[in-house]
Amino acid sequence: MEPISFGPPREERADAARNRAHLIEVARTMVAELGADKVTMDGLAERAGLGKGTVFRRFGTRAGIFLALLDEEEAVFQQQVLNGPPPLGPGAPAVDRLVAFGHARMEFLVERTALARAALDPGQPRPVNASPSLFQVQMLLHEACPDVTAIRALALQLTAALEGPLLLYLRASDAPPTLPRDLAAAWTTLVERVCG
Amino acid sequence: MEPISFGPPREERADAARNRAHLIEVARTMVAELGADKVTMDGLAERAGLGKGTVFRRFGTRAGIFLALLDEEEAVFQQQVLNGPPPLGPGAPAVDRLVAFGHARMEFLVERTALARAALDPGQPRPVNASPSLFQVQMLLHEACPDVTAIRALALQLTAALEGPLLLYLRASDAPPTLPRDLAAAWTTLVERVCG
Repeated sequence: MEPISFGPPREERADAARNRAHLIEVARTMVAELGADKVTMDGLAERAGLGKGTVFRRFGTRAGIFLALLDEEEAVFQQQVLNGPPPLGPGAPAVDRLVAFGHARMEFLVERTALARAALDPGQPRPVNASPSLFQVQMLLHEACPDVTAIRALALQLTAALEGPLLLYLRASDAPPTLPRDLAAAWTTLVERVCG
Repeated sequence: MEPISFGPPREERADAARNRAHLIEVARTMVAELGADKVTMDGLAERAGLGKGTVFRRFGTRAGIFLALLDEEEAVFQQQVLNGPPPLGPGAPAVDRLVAFGHARMEFLVERTALARAALDPGQPRPVNASPSLFQVQMLLHEACPDVTAIRALALQLTAALEGPLLLYLRASDAPPTLPRDLAAAWTTLVERVCG
């Protein structure tokens, strides 16, 4: 019997991975040079020397390009939570880490407003349980308040509290500049009172 | 000098209001008879004896039809908060009212899953500050914890915590049936600890 093979053959997978890495590098250069607003799927395909079909298969939509760039930076951010210095990284009390996590997460997104806004696809809303923050909020919450019941639901609610208003801010072009500062203060209140 | 006139002439406005009321009544009958899934803009226009253009101007999108139906029921719900019996209405301590508000709001949306799901337009996400809950959460929060700073931001976060996961649940066809119960328990924890 032939062994069962899953997915495309090895060579094709390696090609796809190379294409993806190349496209991400070219997209990052284009965003730096032109700004996210000016990067299109056609422009990216041309500059990368690849077919438009390849770009489409890789990213799905124009927003998918920026989401992929953002995802790479998210991975770096998540490493800081897992292995970085306290209070974000291990070593500080979990409540302080959860407060620091929210503040760092807000700063992360506000510093990348253009990218984060371009990654928000109005036709494809990102549900809160697709947020890379949910896992980390749940981990820190579990450590900070081990006595809480329905911890998964509470983590979902806190993640929505953290990201919902900020995504709204990123989406609105006329958002008041004080909102992120107030949201940071409110996040501190929320976490300290929930876990205090 | 002619008096300055804002908007369309009075007759046209009265016509528009009549059309809207008629369309909403017909849409409600169709949802009851056929289910929200089967109601289309064309079908509604035909049954109401109005042009498709009129339906389009009134509701914008298919989801807009269901949003209008939901909005009418929201108004009834909001009256219960403003004038109904405690603990949702006035008379109970504000913390209890805020807990009851979250539970009633979840029940309201879960009981109207088909309508609420049909009202979610994937191309037109409803930002959390467009939620009719925000005003009431902020009012009850202000009463329950008058000492909190950045109260608007905190109300925004609590509204996102209340509605974000639930909207996610309404959107997902394979959501676990226990989620709303856990979310209700988590909401109690959240409010009691924030305002306790």
